[in-house]
Amino acid sequence: MLLNQTRLQSLCAESSIDALVATAPENVTYSTGYWALSQWIRRGPQSFAVLPARDIAAACVLAPTSLLDQLADQEDVWVEDVRRFGFFHMDQADVELGPLDRELVRLNALPDRKDGIAALLSAIRDMGLERSSVGIDELGLMPGQWEQLVRELPHCKISPASELFRRIRAVKTPAEIERLSRVAVIAERSVAAALAIVEEGVTEMELARAFHTRTVQDDAFPVLGCIGFGTRSAMPNVHPSQAPLRRGDVIRFDVGGRYKHYRADIARIATFGEPDARVKTYHRALHNGVNAAFEVIRPGVTAAEVFKTAVEAAQRSGIPHYSRNHVGHGIGLDGYDVPNLAPGSKQVIEEGMVMCVETPYYELGWCGLQVENTVVVRADGPQLLHRTDGALQVLA
Amino acid sequence: MLLNQTRLQSLCAESSIDALVATAPENVTYSTGYWALSQWIRRGPQSFAVLPARDIAAACVLAPTSLLDQLADQEDVWVEDVRRFGFFHMDQADVELGPLDRELVRLNALPDRKDGIAALLSAIRDMGLERSSVGIDELGLMPGQWEQLVRELPHCKISPASELFRRIRAVKTPAEIERLSRVAVIAERSVAAALAIVEEGVTEMELARAFHTRTVQDDAFPVLGCIGFGTRSAMPNVHPSQAPLRRGDVIRFDVGGRYKHYRADIARIATFGEPDARVKTYHRALHNGVNAAFEVIRPGVTAAEVFKTAVEAAQRSGIPHYSRNHVGHGIGLDGYDVPNLAPGSKQVIEEGMVMCVETPYYELGWCGLQVENTVVVRADGPQLLHRTDGALQVLA
Repeated sequence: MLLNQTRLQSLCAESSIDALVATAPENVTYSTGYWALSQWIRRGPQSFAVLPARDIAAACVLAPTSLLDQLADQEDVWVEDVRRFGFFHMDQADVELGPLDRELVRLNALPDRKDGIAALLSAIRDMGLERSSVGIDELGLMPGQWEQLVRELPHCKISPASELFRRIRAVKTPAEIERLSRVAVIAERSVAAALAIVEEGVTEMELARAFHTRTVQDDAFPVLGCIGFGTRSAMPNVHPSQAPLRRGDVIRFDVGGRYKHYRADIARIATFGEPDARVKTYHRALHNGVNAAFEVIRPGVTAAEVFKTAVEAAQRSGIPHYSRNHVGHGIGLDGYDVPNLAPGSKQVIEEGMVMCVETPYYELGWCGLQVENTVVVRADGPQLLHRTDGALQVLA
Repeated sequence: MLLNQTRLQSLCAESSIDALVATAPENVTYSTGYWALSQWIRRGPQSFAVLPARDIAAACVLAPTSLLDQLADQEDVWVEDVRRFGFFHMDQADVELGPLDRELVRLNALPDRKDGIAALLSAIRDMGLERSSVGIDELGLMPGQWEQLVRELPHCKISPASELFRRIRAVKTPAEIERLSRVAVIAERSVAAALAIVEEGVTEMELARAFHTRTVQDDAFPVLGCIGFGTRSAMPNVHPSQAPLRRGDVIRFDVGGRYKHYRADIARIATFGEPDARVKTYHRALHNGVNAAFEVIRPGVTAAEVFKTAVEAAQRSGIPHYSRNHVGHGIGLDGYDVPNLAPGSKQVIEEGMVMCVETPYYELGWCGLQVENTVVVRADGPQLLHRTDGALQVLA
């Protein structure tokens, strides 16, 4: 299961919350396993979930009628109580149906709850939560819906819960770690596929095509594809262009797709031909920064301490002026999960967190260099989720 | 330019609106040409634009400092007044910079406006809009921000403008039509690439890989990839599985990527081997539905009339019980733009609208059949934006 049930229960108990309502796509998928196509690819369509903290098995999912086939077909879905809303027409052949189609017929025959908010209100009432403390993920609501819920549930103690969902999602379950590892490996394989076509004059776009092709062939979806050559590599969000590769160029990748809804985000540096001394020194300093962070990452350490360790290691080992906003972030269904490895952050590293640890360096007029590795935090420290460690690759 | 300036001006005048504020990613990109990576791939990060209706050239864009490289590098961006917010560290080499890097240095040196809402408030004040009628796109705001804007701009007449943005975006500019045509062609080429690997036992996932590979090789990003065989093709949102193709199966595609931010959405049907008589009859009826819609689509006709025409043609020509929620929708930066070709819709077709016209039929236990074509509305009727017309393809 994607959902970390015990963490949901302990964090809800800590905040005296009886039930959670998921509204943003990542929280609906996380809570129920249900990936509702329309809310993931557009803004506007909604699906929701309601999770009573003390009895998670009684959770319900609220879905548009037009998307019920996804509830019937998706193997991640474990929630049994489905409530549908809205009209959608399907026909039915006069034959004996298979189990999948029978399930879809059953779902289509459920009562129509009119619209998402009406469905949510009736679910909260039916589940006996009308006088409870309910945390509602505010990020997936449309303007005015929060106020409507507060108005229609006068005896409910309603509080915003997007941040609480982020805290719950921060510690990954084994099923999540497996996907995060897979998608991280897909990203590094895709970098290798792009580097495999390197030759003088190849363009950033050609590398991007090779990169994304490998990603889709591994059944992931392209998301992030920053690939830049030479001085263009110093642009943090460099978009692949027709710029041709020249001997001596740095090639910077900050990339990653989505696999079974889970994100990758890794950075790799190669040079086309022997790098100059400063590239080598600086890259080693950045790599030392990430490796120093790995030395201190373990349950109980603060994010601020990880930040300080990485930045100081990079400064000590070759970039005295090294400065950063953060040296990494959690990753999961969202590209930026908890924790944020930033100065002053009191977030505490916990076992099971999955994080991208990174030390980017952007020098306009020269190049961008970056190491970004993904780890899961184990009891005794970080474990790399992919196979390569971000060392500088020199291409002949 | 992506933005339809004259339409923005006439619709603002009609609603007595002096200026528009774009907040949702599609409206920021549409208004300014600026595609802000972080707001497109996650929920949370924000970029905004302010457009005075009478002097669109004076528009301004508000961007996080970490994304300024995209403003410097993206050729679609025409807005000159840039306001940045938030801290982001970059270094600079002691060399003569090229024009791109010089522009980025200039942008980085602009004053820090603290955060998105502070930047937006100061822009509205600086532009002399503090006592004007301002339409604010409510969809891209975070909870509480609408109330904050209303509180801090007590003399402004603020109204929600997401629907107005949708109406403006409904009539496409030549630059938009070019992209929509390109991405529609990429979608049909990708269908052809998938069908090229058809053989007994090939799986839905293998076809999906071939489909998406063609899409990324044409520099588009995969978005929609519903591909189903046999009875699975009756699921409206069928997700490609390991199901193998068997002789006699229908193959249904409802698919399309994103190219330069613009969406495709087409549907195609093939059969593996000679189709049975009912598949032929029903597909022809659905095709007749789309073609009948094409006969009536022209400026001035209502969406309801297009709906009625398509449904009745499908009913008359082979599926007497044919029933649908809608027979298509606009397409652009969003997958569902105005108009919505639905019963009772008073939306009027206008020259320059781009629409997906579709007649899907889902029969559980049998199969799904669907024709979905993309057209631009010209003065004398619809013009297909791709090369194939959605006829049934029979594969030996």
